[in-house]
Amino acid sequence: MTNFDLFNQVTDELAIVEERLISSIKSDLPLLDQASTHLVKAGGKRLRPAFALLSAKMFTESLDEVIPLAVALELIHMATLVHDDVIDNSSLRRGRETVKSGWGNRVSIYAGNYVFARSLSLVSLYQRSDILEVLAEASMRICEGEINQMMSCYDVNQGLKDYLRRIERKTALLISVSCQLGAMLLNVEEYKTRALKNYGYYLGMAFQITDDILDFVADEEILGKPVGSDIKQGVITLPAIYAIKFDPRGDQLRNWLASPEECANRSEDIIQIVNDSEGIDYAYQVSCRYLEKARQELRFLPDVPVKESFNNIALFISNREF
Amino acid sequence: MTNFDLFNQVTDELAIVEERLISSIKSDLPLLDQASTHLVKAGGKRLRPAFALLSAKMFTESLDEVIPLAVALELIHMATLVHDDVIDNSSLRRGRETVKSGWGNRVSIYAGNYVFARSLSLVSLYQRSDILEVLAEASMRICEGEINQMMSCYDVNQGLKDYLRRIERKTALLISVSCQLGAMLLNVEEYKTRALKNYGYYLGMAFQITDDILDFVADEEILGKPVGSDIKQGVITLPAIYAIKFDPRGDQLRNWLASPEECANRSEDIIQIVNDSEGIDYAYQVSCRYLEKARQELRFLPDVPVKESFNNIALFISNREF
Repeated sequence: MTNFDLFNQVTDELAIVEERLISSIKSDLPLLDQASTHLVKAGGKRLRPAFALLSAKMFTESLDEVIPLAVALELIHMATLVHDDVIDNSSLRRGRETVKSGWGNRVSIYAGNYVFARSLSLVSLYQRSDILEVLAEASMRICEGEINQMMSCYDVNQGLKDYLRRIERKTALLISVSCQLGAMLLNVEEYKTRALKNYGYYLGMAFQITDDILDFVADEEILGKPVGSDIKQGVITLPAIYAIKFDPRGDQLRNWLASPEECANRSEDIIQIVNDSEGIDYAYQVSCRYLEKARQELRFLPDVPVKESFNNIALFISNREF
Repeated sequence: MTNFDLFNQVTDELAIVEERLISSIKSDLPLLDQASTHLVKAGGKRLRPAFALLSAKMFTESLDEVIPLAVALELIHMATLVHDDVIDNSSLRRGRETVKSGWGNRVSIYAGNYVFARSLSLVSLYQRSDILEVLAEASMRICEGEINQMMSCYDVNQGLKDYLRRIERKTALLISVSCQLGAMLLNVEEYKTRALKNYGYYLGMAFQITDDILDFVADEEILGKPVGSDIKQGVITLPAIYAIKFDPRGDQLRNWLASPEECANRSEDIIQIVNDSEGIDYAYQVSCRYLEKARQELRFLPDVPVKESFNNIALFISNREF
């Protein structure tokens, strides 16, 4: 099953989103224009637009009204990516040069700010301050998550709870908001909006956990970025947190992960230990629990064809190949 | 005349803004909290809140409703400053350590984003999407101005027009928006809102021009930052643009200003040439023309006591000591 199948209920709309992403960030300034366009063309799964569109499609067939929201959500996501690039000194994202490595730190920061401001101007067209409020609140939490991730680098004493709180802000929140706003825009009953919001939250958690697993086990070609990039940067994710605590070589792992030098130089050894441990399996189980919770939320939603997509997405994530 | 006298019509409200600035950016994350609070406590003239309050006071005595807007405007301004710090490697702003030099690049970027998102959540409380639209649009233009400034560094071929377009986005826009929104919030007649918007624009232009003059002529102690900091970074402002074109030593100046090394090492010589030229006088005249235009806009506004403040602010800027 591919992304295409999962989102086939909104294929046409996603194509429009793609066009609008490019047209929406046009600027008179060539440098800004190039940097932003490069950012859009680097691609990505467009998960957030897809979720907003699917959510709305639960309640209406005409999704024209939802397009600007879908575009805005992806722009917000992109703004966080371009700022991450500045910070992590990443030179490769999804196999393409990042804005930073092409144009330098300054342009990356400004391009991120520009893209974020553009998303707001799109949202302002709805004249819906409740939607803005949700986005503003989410943006603040996302910043907190980023600071949190930075602070927890090389911190070998973090536990499951710290990790979950971090990925909640890093990933789950904006996916949750995407599902929520797709419904909110159409003023559907509150319990349905809440069910979609919760679905997005649980799904986002599972998505990030499996993404973190992939950083240990995936093929570089499939991943589109170097394997072990988390470890190299001292980002300690669930499989490693488990292995530190429960693997016989946990103490060795703990010492290495606490040291920026060892993380950078011994990433292959570290990845090996984590792969040999039960950390991957454990993380996978945690992810599956979230996916089950996500699917439970679907009970509150109308039995329309698009509902199957929500179910399939959860199944797809539980079947990601490790 | 001091800032205190200029804004004495809104002294009490500015004190509330100051408190709210600190309380509004509280975060559970100690590092983010410290960085943001440091940013607020670094002070600043609070020009944007003052203008929003004064504008509103043209039409009402009760300014409670305007406070969140005033706070939001300063937060937006602060977000741009903290991102500037990352970029310029400034280690001193207003005589205090910048967020960057205290906590590093990453925290500065995230703190800026956080503070910006916080300003949006404040604005969303008004349930006024027209206000959001103005702010989103202004934010995009400000980013463009920042990129523009970056691109024009060491560019000795820029003219008056390039310079004016740049400072428009860098400074005049947000001051203009502050004046405009103070009136918009109260739904006053459109021509009055426009007069305040124009006043803010012209005043902002004059303010930046005199600020740029000060970078050549002021005392380091008065300025709160090193004299010649523009030149050292290759930022070519009006006095230098004039001197390049019309001073007998213009060619010498042109060669130096085109070179990052000469800008860094010969800043004192460069400052001397510009000071000896008629560039300072010329820039001052341009500034005065804007101030005259600003004062002309006041004709469209009601004859209430606060109008005198708008007049005095323009006079104050024309009397800044060079």
